[in-house]
Amino acid sequence: MLVVKVGGSQGIDYGALCDDVAALWRADQPLLLVHGGSHETNLLSEQLGHPPRFVTSPSGHSSRFTDRQTLEMFAMVYAGKMNTLIVERLQMRAVNAVGLSGLDGRLLEGKRKDTLRVVEGGRQRILRGDWTGTVERVNVALLQLLLGAGYLPVVSPPAASEAGEAVNVDGDRAAAQIAAALRAETLLLLSNVPGLLRHFPDESTLVRQIAPGEIDEYAGFAEGRMKKKVLGAKEALAAGVGRVIIGDARVPQPIRQALGGAGTRIG
Amino acid sequence: MLVVKVGGSQGIDYGALCDDVAALWRADQPLLLVHGGSHETNLLSEQLGHPPRFVTSPSGHSSRFTDRQTLEMFAMVYAGKMNTLIVERLQMRAVNAVGLSGLDGRLLEGKRKDTLRVVEGGRQRILRGDWTGTVERVNVALLQLLLGAGYLPVVSPPAASEAGEAVNVDGDRAAAQIAAALRAETLLLLSNVPGLLRHFPDESTLVRQIAPGEIDEYAGFAEGRMKKKVLGAKEALAAGVGRVIIGDARVPQPIRQALGGAGTRIG
Repeated sequence: MLVVKVGGSQGIDYGALCDDVAALWRADQPLLLVHGGSHETNLLSEQLGHPPRFVTSPSGHSSRFTDRQTLEMFAMVYAGKMNTLIVERLQMRAVNAVGLSGLDGRLLEGKRKDTLRVVEGGRQRILRGDWTGTVERVNVALLQLLLGAGYLPVVSPPAASEAGEAVNVDGDRAAAQIAAALRAETLLLLSNVPGLLRHFPDESTLVRQIAPGEIDEYAGFAEGRMKKKVLGAKEALAAGVGRVIIGDARVPQPIRQALGGAGTRIG
Repeated sequence: MLVVKVGGSQGIDYGALCDDVAALWRADQPLLLVHGGSHETNLLSEQLGHPPRFVTSPSGHSSRFTDRQTLEMFAMVYAGKMNTLIVERLQMRAVNAVGLSGLDGRLLEGKRKDTLRVVEGGRQRILRGDWTGTVERVNVALLQLLLGAGYLPVVSPPAASEAGEAVNVDGDRAAAQIAAALRAETLLLLSNVPGLLRHFPDESTLVRQIAPGEIDEYAGFAEGRMKKKVLGAKEALAAGVGRVIIGDARVPQPIRQALGGAGTRIG
């Protein structure tokens, strides 16, 4: 089983990605696709007059505050536009794709974290009404039901809280949980960079290989969204996934290039 | 099997609808939900500066022109916001719902009609680039796979063209096709009116009962969106559905009220 996560940043070539998925599908490679939608969500939130609000934790970590309106825009882009248009591209390539959000059959489930401790103007305060969570359980029976019947699942956040609420979750870490639940040999984390860079954004400093015991050491090179990819890679390997490849989705044949040696191999 | 279609017009109480679905689910009533999203789509298209464009056919019928941008907004609202939030409401009521668009596994498939003949300024012309179609086939195996595994499918347009493109289709007629494919005993078409009115919008002129042979006669009373409901009812009955009830989704227990005698019964 191959789990491919494709990000939602600017510059990603979804047509090339779907060409590659179709080629693997025709070659009977069992696979599943997980996708993001961050760039389109930012565009929509600006257009609708509700731009992203970034907050800083006491430890200095920056994250997006997901109020209810943001969560609903997130659902519109991830489960609506991105998921539907990826399923459309795959159906046009004769791949029998089925789109699912993490709410569907509680495919991705975990605790909601509805309060955030943040630093604003030098003072700590508690922000309530956050709609985020972390995936703790995957409904692997639903994925196997669809895979066994010849469908290719195309999965995106949001996930379900234990109460059944929609919660925003990190897509890379969700993909890691899915790969672990399916006992995948390989998890690909594709985005708009060639892999983990020793000196971001200098692409000539690509890290080619990381042994499982070296992940924490290399995690220090990760900037921004790459931090979650390295964390997802670590979680996937710890849960039994064979290897993780962080690769580039801006190129032709992005999946086959990553499987063929491009990107950063971990494990 | 009970197929419930709930419209997307203003005034519909989705909380009450989902309470009712949950009560039937707990009572082991096999059922499936289909939904619309027209009101939210109109709001979004205004907010995004791409308001609905209505065109008139040579026979005087008015319809929405679905250009590609409109189709994508349609996917955001129907498959994104509406579907996700209905699945969320059901999951919060312990109903194991799975949301699907008609593209998923080609659940709803039919021909795309990419040109429209319209009348503008008294002259006929052809408009190209329309993304609409009519459902001709239902992937009943996918619905039965999910129903058999204990999931409640929550279905919305868009559908898939034969080439796999996303196409806007009428939700009432799609629900009629689903009810026929599942050999449903009952199809409920719920919206923001009490049923078919002899003198729209006078709600005291509700038509209580229509025999199958009288549908064409009563179709003349239908205004606006009600025309498609009457057409869907006719198609469903012709395809073997036991009865169709056109009812009100603005009231408490909308499903049980319709099953208990409210609304317009056809068949």
